[in-house]
Amino acid sequence: MPNSNNPIITLLTDFGTQDYFVGAMKGVILSINPRARIVDITHEIPPQDIEAAAFNLLSVYKDFPAGTIHLGVVDPGVGSDRLAILIECATQFFVGPDNGLFSWICQREEKYSARQLTNKEFLREESSTTFHGRDVFAPVAAHVSSGRAPEEFGPVVQDIVSLKQLEPDINGDHIEGRIIHIDRYGNCITNLSPRHFGNQLGAGASLTVNRRNVVGFREFFSQAKPETDEGLFMILGSAGFVEIAAKNASAASILNARRGERVALALTSESKAAG
Amino acid sequence: MPNSNNPIITLLTDFGTQDYFVGAMKGVILSINPRARIVDITHEIPPQDIEAAAFNLLSVYKDFPAGTIHLGVVDPGVGSDRLAILIECATQFFVGPDNGLFSWICQREEKYSARQLTNKEFLREESSTTFHGRDVFAPVAAHVSSGRAPEEFGPVVQDIVSLKQLEPDINGDHIEGRIIHIDRYGNCITNLSPRHFGNQLGAGASLTVNRRNVVGFREFFSQAKPETDEGLFMILGSAGFVEIAAKNASAASILNARRGERVALALTSESKAAG
Amino acid sequence: MPNSNNPIITLLTDFGTQDYFVGAMKGVILSINPRARIVDITHEIPPQDIEAAAFNLLSVYKDFPAGTIHLGVVDPGVGSDRLAILIECATQFFVGPDNGLFSWICQREEKYSARQLTNKEFLREESSTTFHGRDVFAPVAAHVSSGRAPEEFGPVVQDIVSLKQLEPDINGDHIEGRIIHIDRYGNCITNLSPRHFGNQLGAGASLTVNRRNVVGFREFFSQAKPETDEGLFMILGSAGFVEIAAKNASAASILNARRGERVALALTSESKAAG
Repeated sequence: MPNSNNPIITLLTDFGTQDYFVGAMKGVILSINPRARIVDITHEIPPQDIEAAAFNLLSVYKDFPAGTIHLGVVDPGVGSDRLAILIECATQFFVGPDNGLFSWICQREEKYSARQLTNKEFLREESSTTFHGRDVFAPVAAHVSSGRAPEEFGPVVQDIVSLKQLEPDINGDHIEGRIIHIDRYGNCITNLSPRHFGNQLGAGASLTVNRRNVVGFREFFSQAKPETDEGLFMILGSAGFVEIAAKNASAASILNARRGERVALALTSESKAAG
Repeated sequence: MPNSNNPIITLLTDFGTQDYFVGAMKGVILSINPRARIVDITHEIPPQDIEAAAFNLLSVYKDFPAGTIHLGVVDPGVGSDRLAILIECATQFFVGPDNGLFSWICQREEKYSARQLTNKEFLREESSTTFHGRDVFAPVAAHVSSGRAPEEFGPVVQDIVSLKQLEPDINGDHIEGRIIHIDRYGNCITNLSPRHFGNQLGAGASLTVNRRNVVGFREFFSQAKPETDEGLFMILGSAGFVEIAAKNASAASILNARRGERVALALTSESKAAG
Repeated sequence: MPNSNNPIITLLTDFGTQDYFVGAMKGVILSINPRARIVDITHEIPPQDIEAAAFNLLSVYKDFPAGTIHLGVVDPGVGSDRLAILIECATQFFVGPDNGLFSWICQREEKYSARQLTNKEFLREESSTTFHGRDVFAPVAAHVSSGRAPEEFGPVVQDIVSLKQLEPDINGDHIEGRIIHIDRYGNCITNLSPRHFGNQLGAGASLTVNRRNVVGFREFFSQAKPETDEGLFMILGSAGFVEIAAKNASAASILNARRGERVALALTSESKAAG
C-alpha cells in the first residue's frame, strides 16, 4: 500500500522540460490527490529511448521506500494498441506503457503482477490520443496513491513485453556483455557485475570493446592509477555494474562506442585454470 | 481561495536551471509560507519569449485545481515602468509582469480581475531592479497562498496588456492561422482548433505553410498513415490545437517554419458548398 | 534546529538531470525522512566546477529560512581522502565534500562550526566509492533534517578547505577584482560590490577587462542607456555584485572573457582626490 500520509510518485519521461508536458502531469496528479509527493527522476531520456528509461529506473527504484509509485512514460506507441499497465513488484508500483520499460526490474525481482488499465473511471475525462502521460498514466498513478487497489484498474496481464535480457551472454569460459548505458560524462556502463569477474575484479581481468583492451581497475575516479594507455579504466559504478571510464575524458568518445556495443570479458589463465 | 492545507504555486520562467535564480524564488516562497507546494512548469522558455510562455501556461492551467497560483516570469521589461500584476481568473491566480503573458488565458475565460502590485508590505525588503521574480512576484505569490486577499496588494488594473489575439483570421471562406509554438520534437502547433475544420478534421482539409501543402491527418503519432510526401501530417495535439508533425523528423525543419509562420486552411469544395 | 514539520533540504550538484543520480538522492532522503521537503537549486553546475557551485550557493542561501539544510555535491575527489563534512553556519546547515564549496559562505558569515562525517550509523549501508551524494551526503542531510545533532556525526574539523578568497585585491588606490561567474545570458558577475565604487556606482567609474573599458551604468536591464560603444554596461546584479552585461548580447562573448578574468576598477580623479 502507498504511504497514505506521504505517497510518493516519481516521474521518468522523455518529455524534456521546455514544454508544458511535465507540468500538466503534475497538475493532474495534484488535482486527484493533493497529498501526493512528486519526485522527478528525469525527463531527459532521449526521445523514445525505452532502454535508457529502463536502465535509469532499474538503477534507482530500490532507493525509494515501499509503496512508491513510479510513473514511466517513454511511449513511442502512444495511441496504438500497445497496452497501458500497472505493475506491482518489490512492494512498489509501476505505471506506464507495456513496451519493456519495466521489464528489467521484473526480471531481477522475479515476482510481479500486472494489470491492464481499462477502467475508464480512472482516466481523464477528455482523453487525447497523443498524451497518455497526462490522460492515462498520471491519473492512474494518482488514484493508486489514494489507495485504490490494483484489481480495480483492469484485467490481469500475464506476460509483459520484455526488452533484450539484461544479463550478459555466457558460453563456458566466454562472457560477452554489452554497454547498456552511457552517462553524461561519457562513462560506459556495461551489464557486467562483480560476480562475472570471479576474484579478478581488482586485477587480472580485461575488457575488449571495438578492438581496444581496457585493463586497469580503479576503486574511485580520482585514484592515481591503474589505467590503460588511453587513460581508460574500469570502475564499479553506483548502479552495481562495471563501467568503463577515462581520465578527464569521455570513455565513449575514446572507444567510439554506443549503447549496445559488445564488451568481451577476458580473465587471466590462472583464473581460467581455477574456474 | 487557495487550498490552505496544500496551496500550489507553479513556476514558469525563462531563467533556465543552471543558475541560482529558481532556487532563490523557492527559498523566498518557503520562507513566507512553509506550506506552499511548488511545482515547476518549465524554466526553459527561450529568453524573453513572452509568447512561448503564454502558450505553455495556456496549455496547462486547466489541469491544476482551483486556488492554484501561477507565477510567470518572462520579463524583458524588469525595472522599467511596466506594471507588476496579480490576476484572478477561472478560480485561479496569476502573478507576473503585465506584458501579455496571461492575456490568452484571460481572453479565453472572458472574465478576470487584475490588481497592480504596489503594496510594499508584500515585497522583499531589499528589492533589486533586476530580479522581480525573487523580490516582487515570489513574495506576492507566497502571500496569496497564505490567504491574503487580492485587494490588499494594490489598485485595480482595468486593461491588461494583450498579445496578438490567439484566434485565427477568418474572412468568409478564408481561414488563416499561424504557428503559435514549436515543441522540442519540432511539432508545429497552430492556432487552429477542430471547430475551424467543420466536418473535415479527419479528411479533406489541407494546410499550406511556406508554399507546402500538408494533407494527411493522423489520430495518433505512430499511426501508419496518411501523410504528405515529405512525411508531414496533421494531428490533434494535447493542447487542443491542430499540430503539423512529421514521421520521425522535425516538421519545423522540413517546413523551414518558425513561430508566427502563416498557416492557410483549405477545405474541399464539398465542404465549402455545405458551408 | 531544522523545522520539524517542514524541514527543507536543498540540492546543488553537477550531476545534470539526464541520469538517475538526483532521483537516487531524493529516494534516499525520503526513505529516511518522509517529511523532508526537497528543493532543487541546480544540477547544472559545470562538471567538477567547485567555484561555480560556491557562487550559486553563496547567492541563494540567505533566501531560505533558518534550519534549512543545503546539500552541495560537486566532488571531483570522491572516494579519495578528502573529508566529508557537515557545517553549521548562519542558522543553516551545509553538507558535502570539504573542497571549498562552502568556504565563501563561511568567510562572509565569519562564524561556523564543522564536523567530519565519520559515524557509519548515518551512512548508507552499502556505500559506493563513486557516489557519495547518494551514500554519504543524502543520508546525513536526511538525518540532520530529522533532528540529529551535529556532534553525533563525527569529530570537529578546525579548518575547512578554502577557495581563493572572494574579495578583490586592494592596493591603495588600485582595486583589482575578477569575474567570479558567467550566467546563462553571458552576464559577467564580478566580485566588486557597491562599496568598492565609493560614490561613483552610477557615474564616473570604469572597468577594464581584456583591454576593453566598460563605462556605462544602468539601473535595470531595459534602461535605454548609458552604455559603452559595444553595448556593454555595468549593472548591480541580484546577487549583490556589479555585473557587466550587454544590450541583447552576451557580454562574455564581446569581452572574450572567462571566469577568473581580471577586472580593474578605475574611479575618476575627483573621486581619487576625495578618497
